Formats: sequence, C-alpha cells, structure tokens
Amino acid sequence: MRKKGELVSFRQDIKIVDCTLRDGGLVNNFFFTDEFVKDLYKANLKSGIDYMEFGYKADSDLFDRDKFGKWKFCNDDDIRAIIGDNDDGLKISVMADVGRTNFKRDITDKANSPIDMIRVATYIHTIPAALEMVEYCNKKGYETTINIMAISKSNDSDLDDALEIIGQSCVDTIYIVDSYGSIYPEQMRRLADKYIECAEKYNKKIGIHAHNNQQLAFANTIETLTMGVSYLDSTINGMGRGAGNCSTELLLGFLKNPKYHLTPILTFLEEHINKLKDEGIVWGYDIPYMLTGRMNQHPRDAIQFISDKRTDYSSFFHYLYDKDNL
Amino acid sequence: MRKKGELVSFRQDIKIVDCTLRDGGLVNNFFFTDEFVKDLYKANLKSGIDYMEFGYKADSDLFDRDKFGKWKFCNDDDIRAIIGDNDDGLKISVMADVGRTNFKRDITDKANSPIDMIRVATYIHTIPAALEMVEYCNKKGYETTINIMAISKSNDSDLDDALEIIGQSCVDTIYIVDSYGSIYPEQMRRLADKYIECAEKYNKKIGIHAHNNQQLAFANTIETLTMGVSYLDSTINGMGRGAGNCSTELLLGFLKNPKYHLTPILTFLEEHINKLKDEGIVWGYDIPYMLTGRMNQHPRDAIQFISDKRTDYSSFFHYLYDKDNL
Repeated sequence: MRKKGELVSFRQDIKIVDCTLRDGGLVNNFFFTDEFVKDLYKANLKSGIDYMEFGYKADSDLFDRDKFGKWKFCNDDDIRAIIGDNDDGLKISVMADVGRTNFKRDITDKANSPIDMIRVATYIHTIPAALEMVEYCNKKGYETTINIMAISKSNDSDLDDALEIIGQSCVDTIYIVDSYGSIYPEQMRRLADKYIECAEKYNKKIGIHAHNNQQLAFANTIETLTMGVSYLDSTINGMGRGAGNCSTELLLGFLKNPKYHLTPILTFLEEHINKLKDEGIVWGYDIPYMLTGRMNQHPRDAIQFISDKRTDYSSFFHYLYDKDNL
Repeated sequence: MRKKGELVSFRQDIKIVDCTLRDGGLVNNFFFTDEFVKDLYKANLKSGIDYMEFGYKADSDLFDRDKFGKWKFCNDDDIRAIIGDNDDGLKISVMADVGRTNFKRDITDKANSPIDMIRVATYIHTIPAALEMVEYCNKKGYETTINIMAISKSNDSDLDDALEIIGQSCVDTIYIVDSYGSIYPEQMRRLADKYIECAEKYNKKIGIHAHNNQQLAFANTIETLTMGVSYLDSTINGMGRGAGNCSTELLLGFLKNPKYHLTPILTFLEEHINKLKDEGIVWGYDIPYMLTGRMNQHPRDAIQFISDKRTDYSSFFHYLYDKDNL
C-alpha cells in the first residue's frame, strides 16, 4: 500500500477545503445569514483551513434567485462583502456544475475577483464540457479542479480513460468523489491508488470529497490522505446533503500540522451549528441514508423519506431494492 | 497487509455479537422493557446474528439491584424467561468484569444455564485475575473470551506480554477493544496484525469491539475483519455508552453471507429504537465524545458534559487538554 508521511508527522502538501456553505447549502437552499458566513470565514481563517468554498456559481437563468440564498450564485461582490480584499491567507473557492453554469458570463478575470479556485463538478459523460470550463478558468487565472461524481456507478475502464484525458489537461487537482457514500475503505484505497498514479504521471494533485452515509467519510478521507491524497474536503459537523460529509472537527483532530487549530471550529459549533439544528435543519447519519449508500443510489429518495417524516425503514429498503432489481 | 477473504465473498468464521443490551444498558442503567428484549431476541434470531449478549454478570453485593435493570446481573432464570430453552441457533453471551463478578457463586454449570459464552473484561494489570475466571468458566463448559480494555493507554511491550500469557490459556477468543474510540484505522490494523499473530500461534480467534467517538467504529471493524478478525461486536443503531458502537445495520450491509438479513433489524429500529430516543435516551457521535476520543481519555467527562446540557465545547476541550498536560 502506498504511504506518504507518518501518523506523528505532517505533510506540507495537505490542504483542507471547507465546504460547509457549499455542501451545507444543499440542506437549507443556501439561506445562511451573513453573520453565519462571516463567523465561518473568521473561524476557518483562525483555524488554519486552506480554502473556504462559498457555494456554487449557478446560472441565474436556470435557477430562480428568489428560491435560493445568494451562495447558490456566488457573485464576486457578495463574497467581497464578507471577506473584504481576500489578502489574509485563506483562499476562496466556488463550485461550477457542468451544464448549470454560464461560465463565460459569470466567471471573470481572477485579477478582478476574490475567488482563487474554481471546482468543476462533472459526470464521466460530461468530461469534455468540464475540460472546456477548466481551460477557460485556467486562462482567466484561477486554480482549477475537476470533481468526477458518481464514480461508484462507473466501470473501471471508463474511469481510466477519463483520468487519462483529464491528466493531459491544464487542471491542477483531480477529486475522488464518493457521491453516494457507498465506497468502503478497501475500495477507496484502490481508487486513490489509481488517481495518484495519474497525478504522478501528469504532475497533478488529488483531492477527496467523501459522504457519510455509512459513517465512512472521515475514515475514507484519512485512509486516502495517508496514501498521498492532499486536498481534503470537510464541513463543520459534517453539514451537507443527506448524511453529510467528513467533519472538519474530526479532520483537524487527526492532522498534526501545528498551523491547524481546533478551538475556533469548536467555538463556531457552539455559536452557530447547534442553533441551525434547533431551527430544524437536519443532516447526518440516519438509516435511510445508510440504505441508499449501501445500495449505491442517489440520496434523493432518502431525503424525501426523511422530509416526509416516515420511519418505515424496512419497506423503504425493499422499495430501493426493487427499484434496482425489478 | 494481511487479507482474508474478498469483498464479494464471505467467510464462515465470521460471527456477529449483538451487544445492544450490554453496551446499550450503560446508557439506561439496563432498564429495558421485557418487550424490547424479546423483540431484540427475535430480530437477532431472524437476521442471522450469531450471539446476543444480555448484559453483565455483576455482583449484587457490589451493585444495588434497585438502581439497575435486571440485565446488569443476568440471572439465568431471567434469560430463560425471555428465550425459553435456547435451542434455536442464536447463542447467548454475558460479560463478566474482573473484580465486579462473584463468578464462583453466580456462574454455574453450562449444562444448567441458557448462557453459551462468558466474556471476561479486563485491564492489562488484572489479566491474572481474568485468567482465573476464564479457567473457571472453561471448566464449567462455557466458551470464553478475554477483552483487554484501554489498550490505547498501554505500551507495546506490555501488550505483547499480555497476549503471550493469554495465548497460553484455555480462552477461545481474544478481543481488541478500543475503549476510548481513539484508535485510527492505520493503528487498528497494526493491532489486528499483532493479535492475529498470537491467534495463529495459539489457535485462538480474534474479536473486535469498537467505539464511535471519531466515527471510526464501523471502519475499524471492517478493516480488521478483512485482515482475519472474526468476532465482530455491534449494537443496533450503535446504541452504547457515549458515542456508541459499530452499528449492526452497517455491519449487516457490509457482510455478504446470505444467512444474514437486514430487514428484521430495520423493523426493530422502527418499532423500538426511535421510541427510546423519543424518551430522551441519548447516544451517538457528538462533539464532547469526539474530544475525549481524540485525547485518548475515558468518556466519563463527556457523558457528564452532555448530561449537564453544556455546549461550551472549546472550554471543555481545554479542560481535557490541561487535565492530561498540567
């Protein structure tokens, strides 16, 4: 098994990407208060987090601005209103979905933007469109990533071909994404091995974005980082769609670089996360998400099940099973 | 890395030990209704679980019978009242703590008992006393295990010595126990390697009992089972002290032996676990447990913190830190 670094040492190449607003925004349609966002920014800055993802660069022709908070669209001016001049060491990222972003209109020169990194989320069959976006953003001066989603549904040879094409592009970082929270550590290590091989060949970095359907988001993140994956997505308390993500507090507890500090995240948890939960915002491990994860399915049925306040888990399990098999 | 079996196959040597009553009893002082216990027994039986642990064989001279439910003491007659003659393939276990069990009085011949297996929980420094209990129970006709607790606080050479002594005893199974939920998968694999080496030398089996302080109970369980650990402790919905345990529903989702069935466990979850939670019984991952896990400390301070309804996580973190370092 590949190994980079030791449990008692740290690696300079590790970067934590806070996705609380972006993946958490999928839980509350991005309706975060400015106070929440400002305090999150300060907490990330103080705790040594490397990137903070504000949300999506979604196309306002496709999504109604009244139905979503502003971080679905991430206008440069909205980001600037929170962070000022972005000159303090915490980099800013946004996510741009293939087919849902008017990138030629909404992504301008890096020189005029508070954003540092654009992360392009794609399925395997839309990689040519993703690469067009990456080339565009790269020319505009941004760091770029490609996040290949739903790979647990792809076959090995398609993924090999995809990595080969992406490797030859100008992208900086390629992400392993466990969209359905269905991947076990043993499988995740095999994937990391494949991605790192591509990274070594083409001088790229590898990232991981894990979901917690089977309580494996943190485990999968630290297992692949130990092999050489260096961009680590996390959210505070794992806030994110469905079962959520790798928790920032767990990740900071594991990492040994003295630049990272847990206390600002704990303070943010006290002041903001419990309040969100008290307001009825729900995420995290639950039986329906475990079932979609185990069945390697999109969590949408589980989200609906929970939103309907149903608890007939066994009939839900058989519904998911029949859906795939009948 | 050791490897026994493949992800798509199954191993006959795997045994699931349901600890819902025993570790879950630490949450509610063993006050389970008979209906709960009977339905749990039926659910375990139908789902193919191999052992059901009813609780502790605690010494009633040391613990007040009025302050605990009956599964703190596990009289043979109380077990028999639930399960009848114990002739249906689901084996019964109880836990006996060194120093808290009057084993010569309370553990009788296997021929007269519904119990199949006695699990002796010990610290490293009480292993001679544990071995005395194991020899006694073995002679009475029971299967036995030794569960060495708090090994994350032991040094390697003490653990090596302990395994050597235990290996030479008549015990059937030796358990890796992550008492504080502090052990990462990489460390857990090293431990499993050490225990399995002892097992191969002395013809023993190895088990794992994990805690979920850092959301690693399931990951640590499947990582070590993949290496050859075969006795797997789990509880329904992870019910157990503090952050709880490896969840039975996750484990059944992972295992491929067609004798295991998830549906009876899901039905039990619907009918009983949500009700317990509605009644205010609390367990599972939470920030204070994460902190004691990360600091490699007993969860008692975290349990108190949560019971006091405190949320000042950062001051709690500094309290734990100072406790170990000042």
